[in-house]
Amino acid sequence: MSLFVHKYGGTSMGSIERIQNVAKRVAKWHAEGHQVVVVPSAMSGETNRLLGLAKELSETPDPREVDMLASTGEQASSALLAMALLAQGVPARSYTGWQVPVKTDSAFGKARITSIDDQRVRADLDAGKVVIVTGFQGIDPDGHITTLGRGGSDTSAVAMAAALKADECLIFTDVDGVYTTDPRVVPEARRMNVVSFEEMLEMASLGSKVLQIRSVEFAGKYKVPVRVLSSLTDPLISLEEEKNSGTLITFEEDSKMEAAVVSGIAFSRDEAKITLLGVPDKPGVAFAILGPVADANIDIDMIIQNQSVDGTTDFSFTVNRNDFKRTLDVIQKTIVPNTGAREVITDEKVCKVSIVGIGMRSHAGVASLMFRTLAEEGVNIQMISTSEIKTSVLIQDKYMELAVRALHKAFGLDGNPAETAVEE
Amino acid sequence: MSLFVHKYGGTSMGSIERIQNVAKRVAKWHAEGHQVVVVPSAMSGETNRLLGLAKELSETPDPREVDMLASTGEQASSALLAMALLAQGVPARSYTGWQVPVKTDSAFGKARITSIDDQRVRADLDAGKVVIVTGFQGIDPDGHITTLGRGGSDTSAVAMAAALKADECLIFTDVDGVYTTDPRVVPEARRMNVVSFEEMLEMASLGSKVLQIRSVEFAGKYKVPVRVLSSLTDPLISLEEEKNSGTLITFEEDSKMEAAVVSGIAFSRDEAKITLLGVPDKPGVAFAILGPVADANIDIDMIIQNQSVDGTTDFSFTVNRNDFKRTLDVIQKTIVPNTGAREVITDEKVCKVSIVGIGMRSHAGVASLMFRTLAEEGVNIQMISTSEIKTSVLIQDKYMELAVRALHKAFGLDGNPAETAVEE
Repeated sequence: MSLFVHKYGGTSMGSIERIQNVAKRVAKWHAEGHQVVVVPSAMSGETNRLLGLAKELSETPDPREVDMLASTGEQASSALLAMALLAQGVPARSYTGWQVPVKTDSAFGKARITSIDDQRVRADLDAGKVVIVTGFQGIDPDGHITTLGRGGSDTSAVAMAAALKADECLIFTDVDGVYTTDPRVVPEARRMNVVSFEEMLEMASLGSKVLQIRSVEFAGKYKVPVRVLSSLTDPLISLEEEKNSGTLITFEEDSKMEAAVVSGIAFSRDEAKITLLGVPDKPGVAFAILGPVADANIDIDMIIQNQSVDGTTDFSFTVNRNDFKRTLDVIQKTIVPNTGAREVITDEKVCKVSIVGIGMRSHAGVASLMFRTLAEEGVNIQMISTSEIKTSVLIQDKYMELAVRALHKAFGLDGNPAETAVEE
Repeated sequence: MSLFVHKYGGTSMGSIERIQNVAKRVAKWHAEGHQVVVVPSAMSGETNRLLGLAKELSETPDPREVDMLASTGEQASSALLAMALLAQGVPARSYTGWQVPVKTDSAFGKARITSIDDQRVRADLDAGKVVIVTGFQGIDPDGHITTLGRGGSDTSAVAMAAALKADECLIFTDVDGVYTTDPRVVPEARRMNVVSFEEMLEMASLGSKVLQIRSVEFAGKYKVPVRVLSSLTDPLISLEEEKNSGTLITFEEDSKMEAAVVSGIAFSRDEAKITLLGVPDKPGVAFAILGPVADANIDIDMIIQNQSVDGTTDFSFTVNRNDFKRTLDVIQKTIVPNTGAREVITDEKVCKVSIVGIGMRSHAGVASLMFRTLAEEGVNIQMISTSEIKTSVLIQDKYMELAVRALHKAFGLDGNPAETAVEE
């Protein structure tokens, strides 16, 4: 007997019929003697509906009350899934985050899980029940309901798997795995059978939206094997087949069959670039610029500081496009007065393209192949940033598809599209 | 400074605009220095939508999971009301039943409140906040979410008022008070300014659906003054006017200005009559009949046992029409074999009409005026049941409107319909 955590996204839970299909799939695992904990998202559209109501009342609704509101979506879908399982004769029980409890900090809207008490869930599992735990939510030290932010159900599932020391956390979604890049951009993209945790972390952080990045971090911290697989297959396909489908995110590099230097091409359109010209080149200037931005709770991605000329320097950084206007506010109100920057230049029409691969650690010349490939396509590189297992460039966003396709080919990732097409 | 509990029904919370109107009304009370606790229902239609989803999954969905599901409606509307108040500059915070906590027994779907901890709510009130508490729900000793059943938000509000020793519990609804009878049946029905608790209890139990009967019982037990008033007036009408509007349910008979012998005519269409012919007339037979029905959790209303003839007797009782089929099952399977009843006769086309009034206690001839009035209209009486302050008759349901109108007139209750029309 093994213990599995299943996570089903909003699309998989999107209608009564789909919930019944999820129940069938879960029942199949249960019937073969496995213990199963299911973490469902809200029915697709429900969270947006609720947040839309909140927006009608206030441009900036109170975060505590938003969490109170938004958390109802998962509570409802969890109860419905329990009913669907019971209707199929499978003993089941649903719990909210606070009932488990899943304890979090008090950062409403983006809370972090601090601990999970597994007693209640384990008792029900031991009694033969399927246990359903609402994703996306928890309870803070003062007893307020918190949510983990968009995509937080992935994190909930991985955290439950960690708390229960599950054999595997299965993330059922509307794609059948993790691809070498987005198949909508590159039809030749291939599904990976295995991907390392580090690569997945870079891919997720770089805009491959299969998994919420915090769920990958969590998986890394607690060494939870995570499998991304399709919820769109026949729910009654054989357990053996299902167990080996999708993409396994692993921590054992040896198990990685494909020793490609570069495993995938990630990209993100949600970039905006800001450059401050003529800031004094003295100690503390980076903090004077980035401190106020961080204080405004805006994440900064790439950062470049140019060579100093005449005692001043140019300083560029990128933020998520959604945070662009707020960032400019902070710059005009605080940073320009504080630093005496001469000019602010912005560009919202940029994107980031990255090559990711554990093999890069031990292979020279990987970045230069990237730069040569882009040069051959006439793509100008605006910023470069590197880590041990990835190299990212910022380019004009109109070149994005071209760049991704060219890199996918250059690094030998193209496969047979007929075999690996994404199902939706 | 006084403390008021406001309860708003689903219609009052039925849209963002209506929620904003509720917030304006609550803000008005808060602005004049009163402490306010608000108990909102789910947005109208929401509870039915959720229960509809459950019915798609199962004819008999698991009661625990139904409560898990249904309780989300009030949680969402409470959060929205908090946002609306905050958007109007009124400090506010919403709590679910389990956060207060409102403790109940474990009878899912019809739980009873066992205790309310007022500490958390009182601390927020003392800090100047409006506190919103989800109606309809609580938490059982094992930490499961429970609901109080349809209309349970009334009970939640009265229970909160009792726990907080509120000055008054205001039930805002889509009618402007309690009427001498249903104005849809008798246009001449008058709104009562004051009604005694006992009368209200009889009216509620007899089908006047302004208040859930358990809320009236709760009000009686804890001597909570309850006022039923309209949520459809301009939310900014003067506080003085609002404080004196609607119908006050009182415990002080002296304060009752109108000393009518009969205060109102109640009626219920939801009746079904069952008669067992030829049951042995011996000790224990009533229990042999009613015990199994009660065990099946079916409420019995009127009961009549005829004079014994030849050692057998006829036994009639009424149940809610919704329970009719289940009752017949119990009778065929258990009661007929146990009692040896000769025959079972049923009638679903019956209704109950009652006259209610504290004045009946000290006035003879009230019942006889009722019987004479019905006789003059040619209405046959099938069963009669009496209490200190009410007399009920069971009649053919096609005569219901006729009987109600005739009795309303005969007991001098007709008023000027133009003045007192119900607003919706």
